[in-house]
Amino acid sequence: MKKNVIYIVGIGPGDVKKMTVEAYETIYAADVIIGYGTYVELVKKSFPDKSFLVTPMTKEVERCRMAYEEAIRDPEKKVVVISSGDAGIYGMASIMYELSAEYPEVEVKMISGVTAAISGAALLGSPIANDFAVISMSDRLTPFEVIEKRLIAAASADFGIVIYNPESRGRAGYLKKACDIIAPFINPDRPCGITQNIARVDENCRILEFRELQNTSVDMFTTVFIPCSNTVVINNKLVTKRGYVH
Amino acid sequence: MKKNVIYIVGIGPGDVKKMTVEAYETIYAADVIIGYGTYVELVKKSFPDKSFLVTPMTKEVERCRMAYEEAIRDPEKKVVVISSGDAGIYGMASIMYELSAEYPEVEVKMISGVTAAISGAALLGSPIANDFAVISMSDRLTPFEVIEKRLIAAASADFGIVIYNPESRGRAGYLKKACDIIAPFINPDRPCGITQNIARVDENCRILEFRELQNTSVDMFTTVFIPCSNTVVINNKLVTKRGYVH
Repeated sequence: MKKNVIYIVGIGPGDVKKMTVEAYETIYAADVIIGYGTYVELVKKSFPDKSFLVTPMTKEVERCRMAYEEAIRDPEKKVVVISSGDAGIYGMASIMYELSAEYPEVEVKMISGVTAAISGAALLGSPIANDFAVISMSDRLTPFEVIEKRLIAAASADFGIVIYNPESRGRAGYLKKACDIIAPFINPDRPCGITQNIARVDENCRILEFRELQNTSVDMFTTVFIPCSNTVVINNKLVTKRGYVH
Repeated sequence: MKKNVIYIVGIGPGDVKKMTVEAYETIYAADVIIGYGTYVELVKKSFPDKSFLVTPMTKEVERCRMAYEEAIRDPEKKVVVISSGDAGIYGMASIMYELSAEYPEVEVKMISGVTAAISGAALLGSPIANDFAVISMSDRLTPFEVIEKRLIAAASADFGIVIYNPESRGRAGYLKKACDIIAPFINPDRPCGITQNIARVDENCRILEFRELQNTSVDMFTTVFIPCSNTVVINNKLVTKRGYVH
């Protein structure tokens, strides 16, 4: 019997050129594309004739079940679930796999994408050229004490730090909270970076000192970079040195 | 005056389909492609007619100067430096930017790629679905004490951990060293993962318990995943749960 397949596709930061070739081809061949509204809108621009199904931001479980049910209804149908960046990093892959035990007749395949730590870093220079940690400030699913512990661990061991979901309307002031937690380990003049709307309209980025970052408010489309101590600014780029002699 | 441009392109794990569309198009339009021999061989398969320049593994600085000199010699020439995965993560971007101060007439542009933490995770399931840390075991440029400190910080704060360059001929036994360092913080039956030769001939991956990983030898084409504690195996996939109720 032919097994139904669902493709979980990381679409990268937003611009179709920053998708992998495989992601592009998978979406191109899809019969139905399922995702959160904002990401569906991004993909629709390049694939206007496709059939899309949308669920709101907090309805991830329902979105997954929708995908499994579409795949079961018709094994010939090519079902694609999209996630921004890479689906394996704070994306749809985990909950899709969790629910896969309930749908043994469906196979799940991952198509990788470029996550914001990578696409944002590329705008700023090379702020995560060495060991780095990725931390989300969203405490919707992770207790704040766990986030706090990870921030301290990452800063005290001099990791480059990338902060996802630094703030939102419901979590105003969270970036300041994060900076206050790690301030004991970071020199106030450490060069840091902010990226917003990567690969979308109004893309922008900014290099600023840690002391300034600590008093900055950002929105939910922002990714924040606090590089490790061995980082300098060269030609207006954040450069984490790796130790080469030249 | 027209500014000379060098494109630093992350080629992803190796298969041309796992490059971004932009990376593919940039290489397609290149006049000369510069890189380490192994990666040049991967790209040559899809672009056999291009002109390639190769330098050995430890000659990163020479490789960069070669690129800058090519770009200066002829501003009309499209020069591309390739890096495996993403050039910003243990790749060529950092040293290219470091040297950029010496070549003010040349502009450097980054084209992102899918790093092994992402492509390897996709083979195993979703082992870095939550906060994670990326650590290289190579002590060629980073003192071992720094690596040790970062391993302890990451494990004690329950990050998912991705280990790059776990071993090489010159660093045999380094994966065991890493596991011994973090063992006090990891349950011996924690499910872990190994990926090898991602997106290349002989690609393979394996899920194994931490106690087994601790006594495993790997090669330099391996990426190791030690997920956070909230990780289970479902349908032979590593799944880091994010906390959704279903």
